[in-house]
Amino acid sequence: MLAYRLIERKRDGGVLARHEIRELAAAYERGDVADYQMAALLMAIVLRGLDREETIALMESMLESGARLDLSDLGVGRVDKHSTGGVGDKVSLVLAPLVSSLGVAVPMMSGRGLAHTGGTLDKLESIAGFRTELTLAEARSQLGRIGCALIGQSREIAPVDRKLYALRDATATVESIPLIAASIMSKKLAEGLTGLVLDVKRGSGAFLPDTARALELAELMVSIGKTHGVPTVALLTAMDRPLGRACGNALEVEEAIHTLHGEGPPDLIQVSYALGAEMLVLGGAASDADAARRMMEVAISSGRAAEQFRRIIEEQGGNPTVVDDPSILPQAREVELYTAPRSGIVAQVEPRAIGRGIVALGGGRTRMDDRIDHSVGFVISARPGDYVTAGEPVATVFARDMAGVAAGMAALSEALVIGDEGEIPLPLLSHRVTAAGVERIDT
Amino acid sequence: MLAYRLIERKRDGGVLARHEIRELAAAYERGDVADYQMAALLMAIVLRGLDREETIALMESMLESGARLDLSDLGVGRVDKHSTGGVGDKVSLVLAPLVSSLGVAVPMMSGRGLAHTGGTLDKLESIAGFRTELTLAEARSQLGRIGCALIGQSREIAPVDRKLYALRDATATVESIPLIAASIMSKKLAEGLTGLVLDVKRGSGAFLPDTARALELAELMVSIGKTHGVPTVALLTAMDRPLGRACGNALEVEEAIHTLHGEGPPDLIQVSYALGAEMLVLGGAASDADAARRMMEVAISSGRAAEQFRRIIEEQGGNPTVVDDPSILPQAREVELYTAPRSGIVAQVEPRAIGRGIVALGGGRTRMDDRIDHSVGFVISARPGDYVTAGEPVATVFARDMAGVAAGMAALSEALVIGDEGEIPLPLLSHRVTAAGVERIDT
Repeated sequence: MLAYRLIERKRDGGVLARHEIRELAAAYERGDVADYQMAALLMAIVLRGLDREETIALMESMLESGARLDLSDLGVGRVDKHSTGGVGDKVSLVLAPLVSSLGVAVPMMSGRGLAHTGGTLDKLESIAGFRTELTLAEARSQLGRIGCALIGQSREIAPVDRKLYALRDATATVESIPLIAASIMSKKLAEGLTGLVLDVKRGSGAFLPDTARALELAELMVSIGKTHGVPTVALLTAMDRPLGRACGNALEVEEAIHTLHGEGPPDLIQVSYALGAEMLVLGGAASDADAARRMMEVAISSGRAAEQFRRIIEEQGGNPTVVDDPSILPQAREVELYTAPRSGIVAQVEPRAIGRGIVALGGGRTRMDDRIDHSVGFVISARPGDYVTAGEPVATVFARDMAGVAAGMAALSEALVIGDEGEIPLPLLSHRVTAAGVERIDT
Repeated sequence: MLAYRLIERKRDGGVLARHEIRELAAAYERGDVADYQMAALLMAIVLRGLDREETIALMESMLESGARLDLSDLGVGRVDKHSTGGVGDKVSLVLAPLVSSLGVAVPMMSGRGLAHTGGTLDKLESIAGFRTELTLAEARSQLGRIGCALIGQSREIAPVDRKLYALRDATATVESIPLIAASIMSKKLAEGLTGLVLDVKRGSGAFLPDTARALELAELMVSIGKTHGVPTVALLTAMDRPLGRACGNALEVEEAIHTLHGEGPPDLIQVSYALGAEMLVLGGAASDADAARRMMEVAISSGRAAEQFRRIIEEQGGNPTVVDDPSILPQAREVELYTAPRSGIVAQVEPRAIGRGIVALGGGRTRMDDRIDHSVGFVISARPGDYVTAGEPVATVFARDMAGVAAGMAALSEALVIGDEGEIPLPLLSHRVTAAGVERIDT
């Protein structure tokens, strides 16, 4: 009867008590509450909302359903970075080695790509042999040795979140700010962190395109982090175009490697440095953002960050020479240039169309159990605001076969809008959210 | 993917196309759509609504999922009466024999009691041996012989409605006017009717207490009936107090028998005649309501209606002498008077408290598979507006044991509110809804 009463109350716009949410989650984990009851409740939550207290109670139920890393004996700050997902977002591949090379431990738990967004685990698995399915004990031990582990959501972590997420994914109940916040934070707070940095995307390619909703999610997650004693900072970043030039798993690993060698595209460097500076300050390795930035520049120019990436890859079973020779990554059979169909200004590089293009090429998923081809994708050199001439190469398609080339060309012609006037893109970084409030940082 | 897309669209307030709803219902019946997906959709429907076209498409999907009675060769009108449910509502027990004794066939498919409302099948099963689980073929044949059959929702009728209803019952998604209308009409339109009369209850004990919502349900069902070529009339009747005096299965059968002998309580007679007149006119047996009422008076005074009840009971395996000697019905072991705790005016006889009291006595259900005791219940002589003196008997409790007596007394003291001033009860009959519109008929 508990499930029925709670569904009914939430349906009518009422509030669920902390102990009710916890009892319900426990009953759901035991199998005493059916998936169909939980699905009805989730839809009522999507349409009626959860307040802050309800969200925290749900998050705690999920967090406490599983194991938690205790990294307190590492003796250094432990900071993770989480992104709400986008296209071309390979920041984790840059920051995990970069920040962990500077004395802050990075226990990074990532996800796989789904629909138009990519996932860090898929990108890492472009590297032959790279194992992302470490047990918590293995991750703990690796963190002790080299200060970084790049892993998937272990079955030991937040099993109720895993069960609920699969249900939400099948019932169109993913799009809810409190449910997203509770899900993300239940996993991040299991990592034994001393600080957390969130990259909340906004713009057409983001999960929550609208700035107000992206800010709401950021503030809610920052507030949950504070409640649980984990200082949390969120930056709002632009996802109205892909980040960097490479979009596709192996292509993004290659671009991340170039960035660790000091040769990354400017927008990727800027976002990586902004998020990395927050990580280094929260992790106690830098006194302020300027100092943190200088440390990162040195780590890159000295080769220390690249060396740390080699160690991570080696520890996790991959071939570390990829850091010196990215050409050993899977290579697409067909490589074809895409040229501007007319002269004009690039008004849009629409990330969702690019993301769907990667799926069409075989490099992404429509279902969680789809297999993917790591080699395919796009490199897009044209940026919003660029002037291009008809016939000028503006992008490259990497495909398995000629059918893939055609699908990639179609995706590019949909995504790349060339007109007589440009559109003003979103500032790359726009808001910084901390427990103290929201600060505009448009750059 | 169909289910996902439709859930998503309804969640966002969109409209589902007729063919989409029909494909979804078919996939659900085949088991290709999971209960959890349907539960999420049902909650989205409860909170976002269905328009008239969507409701009709859903109703048709349910109707066409099962068998339909073809009674066209009976050569007479076929009219059923359906009530949205209340406390003390034994009108079906009166009207089925009364109307079918006057040349209109009554193929009546009823339900069981749940929560505070009673059900006609449970009441009939107070009569030892009475079989309500006829096959459609048996019901058809009995209708040919005696013009009436009183049956449950056969497994052959609207299986998708049956499956959906069980899911709604477990997920707090019953309370939706379009879902209620589609469910009721999918069963009624399978009965091969030439006319349908609906008794839509309003007031505190009704499923939809609010008049505007009760009217909305009535208009929607009348409109669906018209669309499907079955002239339908709905009357709004009062359920701010129980109908008649007897509340409880065998007690209500006894009161219905008294009514068929011309000795019923005035409110029960008035509602029965109003609904019966609509049935006789729709069934082509009477030219207007006045003629219909005179026919019913004669059927009762001549004993013809009572005789028809004997034949129905005999056909369905029960002991017809109950019509002459109701004392052969199950009798409660404990019978105790409830006296007015103070002098004053009866302000309320709250039907939900009475209905819950029947459940507490063991005569109703909280779950569909609960077994019930037919003998227990209440007879309440006090009516709203009556002046009563402290210590005067105003009701009787019929219970299995002294614990039941105590529970019954508690229910009565909650339900019967005696004060210094009365409250104005709802008019017994207030609105008449036809395809032509809504007419006020306050009486």
